[in-house]
Amino acid sequence: MTTAKEAMSLHRRLKGKITVESKIRNLKQKDIKLIYTPGVAFVCEAIYRRPFEKYNLTSKGNNVAIVTDGTRILGLGRIGPYAALPVMEGKAVLYKKFGNVNAFPICLNITDKDQIINTVKAIEPVFGAINLEDIESPKVLEISAELEKSLLIPVFHDDRHGTAVVALAALINSLKIVKKQMSSKIILAGAGSAGYGICKLLTFAGCNNMTVVDSEGAIYKGRTKHMNKYKKEIAEITNPKKQKGMLEDVIKNSDVFIGVSGTKGLLSAKMIQTMNESPIVFALTNPEPEIDPVVAKRSGARIIATGSYMYENKINNALVFPYLMRVILDKKIRRITLDLLFATAKAIADTVPSKQLAYNHIMPEIGNKKIQYNISQALKKFK
Amino acid sequence: MTTAKEAMSLHRRLKGKITVESKIRNLKQKDIKLIYTPGVAFVCEAIYRRPFEKYNLTSKGNNVAIVTDGTRILGLGRIGPYAALPVMEGKAVLYKKFGNVNAFPICLNITDKDQIINTVKAIEPVFGAINLEDIESPKVLEISAELEKSLLIPVFHDDRHGTAVVALAALINSLKIVKKQMSSKIILAGAGSAGYGICKLLTFAGCNNMTVVDSEGAIYKGRTKHMNKYKKEIAEITNPKKQKGMLEDVIKNSDVFIGVSGTKGLLSAKMIQTMNESPIVFALTNPEPEIDPVVAKRSGARIIATGSYMYENKINNALVFPYLMRVILDKKIRRITLDLLFATAKAIADTVPSKQLAYNHIMPEIGNKKIQYNISQALKKFK
Repeated sequence: MTTAKEAMSLHRRLKGKITVESKIRNLKQKDIKLIYTPGVAFVCEAIYRRPFEKYNLTSKGNNVAIVTDGTRILGLGRIGPYAALPVMEGKAVLYKKFGNVNAFPICLNITDKDQIINTVKAIEPVFGAINLEDIESPKVLEISAELEKSLLIPVFHDDRHGTAVVALAALINSLKIVKKQMSSKIILAGAGSAGYGICKLLTFAGCNNMTVVDSEGAIYKGRTKHMNKYKKEIAEITNPKKQKGMLEDVIKNSDVFIGVSGTKGLLSAKMIQTMNESPIVFALTNPEPEIDPVVAKRSGARIIATGSYMYENKINNALVFPYLMRVILDKKIRRITLDLLFATAKAIADTVPSKQLAYNHIMPEIGNKKIQYNISQALKKFK
Repeated sequence: MTTAKEAMSLHRRLKGKITVESKIRNLKQKDIKLIYTPGVAFVCEAIYRRPFEKYNLTSKGNNVAIVTDGTRILGLGRIGPYAALPVMEGKAVLYKKFGNVNAFPICLNITDKDQIINTVKAIEPVFGAINLEDIESPKVLEISAELEKSLLIPVFHDDRHGTAVVALAALINSLKIVKKQMSSKIILAGAGSAGYGICKLLTFAGCNNMTVVDSEGAIYKGRTKHMNKYKKEIAEITNPKKQKGMLEDVIKNSDVFIGVSGTKGLLSAKMIQTMNESPIVFALTNPEPEIDPVVAKRSGARIIATGSYMYENKINNALVFPYLMRVILDKKIRRITLDLLFATAKAIADTVPSKQLAYNHIMPEIGNKKIQYNISQALKKFK
C-alpha cells in the first residue's frame, strides 16, 4: 500500500488521532461530588484567592494550544482551518508521546492578524504555552512578537524556533563529519518563518558567511524588491559580500544548502555540482523536499537530509517541540530566546556520540530518551 | 475528611483532571510518516477537496468546546476564567465518562459580548458542538442566539437547556408520585439562564400555572422594574393572574417550588408551610441549595431534591449533557429545539420505572445505561 492510501485508511479508521480523557480511571458516584459540584467549588475559590494555585490544581500548566489559521499548511499552502486539523492532531500526538504534553488544536476560522492576536489572548487562561503553527509569514512573525509582549505564558513558534533548532543541531553534526567550520559558506533558501528563524539562530551560533535566497534571489542590504521588515533584518546580518543573483548563481562554491523554501524541486543536481567539496544538503520542505535525496546523493552531496519520515537523516521539528516544551512547561520559562534555542540545538546534536556520527546518521532518532535528558540538563540555567 | 479537604487534596494530586491522549497506542517510528509528514498531507488534501471528510478523518465530530468567561461560575459568581477551569474540567470528565465526548475547556479572558461571539466563531473549526457554560445572563442568551444564527454546529447552552431538561424530567416524575397535574401551581425562583430555560420548556410541556420570581419579586406583564427582553418574554407566558409580591407572598398555595436563584437559603421553612399539601421542592442552586434538604423535609416538603451530589434526589445537568450531546454529535443535529428538549426530558423521566418511583427516588442515577438508550430512541426522529 502506498503511504497516501495507508495514511487515508488509518485516519478514516481512527476518526481523529486525539481524545480528551479523564485522569480519574473508573470514576465512581462518590467521586463526582469532589470533581464536580459541590466539591469543585472549594477548588475554584482557592484559585480565586491565590491565583498561582491554577498551576497546582488544574491542567493549565501542561496544556498547549496549537494555533493555526490554515494559511500555510506544510508545503500545501492556504488550505484553510478544516484541512489543517489533521496536521495539528498529528502534532498533538507527538507532543503527548514524546513530551507528555496535553496539546490541543485550535484551528482558526479567521486570518486577520489582529483578530488572531485577540483570539489567542482570549483563550490564554486554559494553556501553559502557545504553539503557533503554519500561519503565513510575515504575518505570523508580527503575531508572535505581539503575543510575546502581551501574554504571560510562552509563545513557541515552531516553524521558526523548532526548525531553527533542528537545522542548527544537524549543521553542527554535519560540519563535524565533513570537518568544516561554522564559518563555511551557507546558502539558505526561504525567507519565511523558518528561513528567518534559521538565519537568526545560525548567526547567533557563529555562522558568519550565510546568504539567504527567496523567490527574487539573494537578499542583500539595499535590495528594494519584495522586501519586508524581517527580510531587511536578514539583509543586515547575512550576505557580507552583498552577493546578488538567483539560487543557481549564489550556490556556487558554497558548503551547505539549507532549503525551507516550500518549493518542491527547487534544487537541481547541477546546482549541487557547483558547490564546494563534500556538499551538505538539507532539503527541509514538507511534504516534498527541494530535491529527491537519491538524486542529490548521485550529484555528489556528501550529506543529504530532509524533513520527511520517508528518508534517512530526518531533520524534523518533532525532535525539538515535544522535548523542549516539556522543559518550558516544567520550568515555567516565559521567553524563547536565541540563547535558549542555541543550548537546545547543542543538546540535541550531542545526543549522537561523535564516534557514531556518519553521513547517514547525523541526528538522533525521535524516540531516543537521551534527547529529553540532554535538553533538560542544557536548560538548567534558564528560567 | 470534609468534602472541601478531600476535593482540594484530589485536585492537588491530579494537577488537572483531563489529559489529551493519542488514539494510537504504542506509536512506532513507521506510524509517524502516516500521522505526520508526509502521509498526513494526503489527508489534508482530501478534506480540502471534499470538506465533509473532516467528519470522517478528524476528531472534529466528537469535540465539544466548553466555553465560559468566568462571570457566573456555579453559585460563586464572577470569579474569572482561571478559577472557572476546575468546573470546566469536571464537566469534561463527565462528558467523557458518560457520553464518550471529547470536551475541552475554553475559559475566556474577555467578558464583552461581541468579543465572546467572535472568539467562539473563530475556534469553530475544531469542534462538533459548542457548550456555553456559566456565563452571566442575559448576556449569554444574546450570545447564544447570535451563535445559533451564525454557526453551522449546534450551540448547547447547558445552564439553560440542560437544567430545563433535568428540571422537567424531575417534575414529571414528582407529579406522578404526588398524583398532581402539569397544571399545578409552580413557583420558579430565578430568571437568569436556568430560569428562562425552565420557564420556556415547562410552558412548552404544558405547565400553564407558573409564576417566576426574581430578586424584585414576581414577574408579571406590565412590570417595569429590573426587566429585560427575556423577562418580558417570561411575563408574556407565565403568571396568568398577574400576581405581584415577593417569593413569600406568591409561594402560598403553590404545589411546586423550583429554585435556580443562585441564592443560598432563599427558601424558608415557613414558606414551605404555606404551600399546598405534598409540596415539591427542587432547590437547585449549586454548590449550596435554596434550603437545607433536612430542614425542607422537616417543614413538610413531600419531595425534596437538589442539584448537589451531597444529597439524595439529585437533579443535576450531568444527567443530560453527556448523553444528549452524544446523540447530537452522532446525528449531527444542528438546532437545540424545545421539541427536542421535551423528548429528552420524557426519556430521562422514563428511565425510572413507575413502580420504583418514590419520594426519595425521582431520578435515575447518572451511570444508568438506560438513560443513553432512552434518549437515543426518543430522538430518532430529530435531525
